[in-house]
Amino acid sequence: MNPRVIEWNDSGGVRYLDQTLLPHEAVHCDADTIDEMIEAIKALRVRGAPLIGIAAAMGLAAAAAKLESQDLTKQWIDDAIARLGAARPTAVNLIWALDRMHEVATELLANGSDAPTVVNALRAAAQKIWDDDVAMCRAIGEAGAELIPQGATVMTHCNAGALATGGIGTALGAIYVAHERGKQVKVVSCETRPLRQGARLTSWELTQAGVPVTAIVDSAAAWVIARGDINLIVTGADRIAANGDVANKIGTYGLAVLARAHEVPFYVAAPRSTFDLALASGDAIPIEERGAEEVGAAPGAKVYNPAFDVTPAEYVTGIVTDRGVLRPPYEKSIAAIF
Amino acid sequence: MNPRVIEWNDSGGVRYLDQTLLPHEAVHCDADTIDEMIEAIKALRVRGAPLIGIAAAMGLAAAAAKLESQDLTKQWIDDAIARLGAARPTAVNLIWALDRMHEVATELLANGSDAPTVVNALRAAAQKIWDDDVAMCRAIGEAGAELIPQGATVMTHCNAGALATGGIGTALGAIYVAHERGKQVKVVSCETRPLRQGARLTSWELTQAGVPVTAIVDSAAAWVIARGDINLIVTGADRIAANGDVANKIGTYGLAVLARAHEVPFYVAAPRSTFDLALASGDAIPIEERGAEEVGAAPGAKVYNPAFDVTPAEYVTGIVTDRGVLRPPYEKSIAAIF
Repeated sequence: MNPRVIEWNDSGGVRYLDQTLLPHEAVHCDADTIDEMIEAIKALRVRGAPLIGIAAAMGLAAAAAKLESQDLTKQWIDDAIARLGAARPTAVNLIWALDRMHEVATELLANGSDAPTVVNALRAAAQKIWDDDVAMCRAIGEAGAELIPQGATVMTHCNAGALATGGIGTALGAIYVAHERGKQVKVVSCETRPLRQGARLTSWELTQAGVPVTAIVDSAAAWVIARGDINLIVTGADRIAANGDVANKIGTYGLAVLARAHEVPFYVAAPRSTFDLALASGDAIPIEERGAEEVGAAPGAKVYNPAFDVTPAEYVTGIVTDRGVLRPPYEKSIAAIF
Repeated sequence: MNPRVIEWNDSGGVRYLDQTLLPHEAVHCDADTIDEMIEAIKALRVRGAPLIGIAAAMGLAAAAAKLESQDLTKQWIDDAIARLGAARPTAVNLIWALDRMHEVATELLANGSDAPTVVNALRAAAQKIWDDDVAMCRAIGEAGAELIPQGATVMTHCNAGALATGGIGTALGAIYVAHERGKQVKVVSCETRPLRQGARLTSWELTQAGVPVTAIVDSAAAWVIARGDINLIVTGADRIAANGDVANKIGTYGLAVLARAHEVPFYVAAPRSTFDLALASGDAIPIEERGAEEVGAAPGAKVYNPAFDVTPAEYVTGIVTDRGVLRPPYEKSIAAIF
């Protein structure tokens, strides 16, 4: 069974699973204000590109519902969305979800709709973003499962699972559907330093779901691949440019290079909300740099701690989307699903 | 200044720097018995292929000196050496150093030499292994420094420095000599999960020595290399086969693949005591697997935790030894220095 990562609480706020405490504790927290949701996203209590978008939309709706009627203005909406959108820079789903929310709110406010109407519409829009993500995950899972042979061992990086989305996940969605279909799939989960989402989250949620998983440190991936133990690699994505370049968790690019060197297929799985067609290539994707304390070097040493890297499209065997598996040339196959 | 990693204590025992506590504390401990030295090596309080060999030799001499005369027998020597040699399986320097000690002891015992004579000879032999390592490190450093261009940025993995040897290190020895010569070298140190020797030890000792160092997580190496920031990669080695295949810390092979993909030179630095000419290739090198707790996955997940990997000789641009820089074909160039 997949865990409940996000839901509405009884007072119309947002209840989320605090992922920083996994796998040791599964603690749920509430966010009723914009500030509380920003903190949850920045601190990675809520993480994963699709889930961040859902959480920000739900957080906006929840915070709007707590306002006095006269305070729910276009100014408040603009300000809240700008602040939520700046919480993390790389994942585009956040911006995509907030754009949808902005459109709903500004249209109703421009029409002179009253506050309860706007609040209801925001909650419905956030719910729709969540519901759509559930459906997109399922569609990705169905498409991705086709790529996984019977008895395959699949390597993945970071967490692109139920903990990263509103549904069954993207990369792990494909694995869950293959598992449901009796394909006896096994997973090798890379630790994903510095925040260890692979070791903490992916190995936890797969174990909960009864999928056999082996955890390794990131730098063991090359050795495991070289021994011939991996049939394919599949990761999620935080942003995909119009040419198929993929921004994803730091380390994804290295796995793609290793995959090519060892002739292992390398797939990326993501819903349409992860594509940023405004970007011609990955060169323009902003790469979030995080604090030195996450790496933990000796005092006096510098630290470079990029949270993401960009994998050029040429390394990507296919992109598994809610509209099927895209193949090169990606300019064409991506354009065809929008 | 490089730290004092090993020395004789006032009572003829071995005093070593406990590397598990770095970079936060620089605590020295004493080992007066075989059991104490085995514990120090197994727990990685003393680590680094050359230093393990020195420490085991010194530990044998120290323990022999504490015995009652009648207890210093060939049986005791054989047993102590077998146990020390089994403390860690991959590094060959340990076996190499203990073979030298065994030869000294058994010859004298066969001659009927008295215990004080044997003890003195063991201490002198251990001191010679240490002194030789200091000289080998210096020679490696001088040869390796020639490979480092003015203003270069050098990537390294794990710790092949003063903390890993009796002298200035192997991979870091080259960097120290380049630094001494005013080459303004900078270092990128990969964290080296699971035990973080890069982040804890390499960034600490380089900072102590005034060499600018930037720490990254292992999986960021690909991105840093792709950006063109690295002029060359140099690592140490735990065992080198007759054909030039290199066993070294897990992650070394991945860096070698990345180096080739990005046309960055990949060097290995090691003294002659690291070569195992009895092995035709790296296939026969035993790879130590360590405990699951070092990786720290969710309960119920399996863990695969190899401490080393083997880099095929074809990925190695050159091997920096105390007899100069070896180039392919390695069968010939290696044979020529023995």
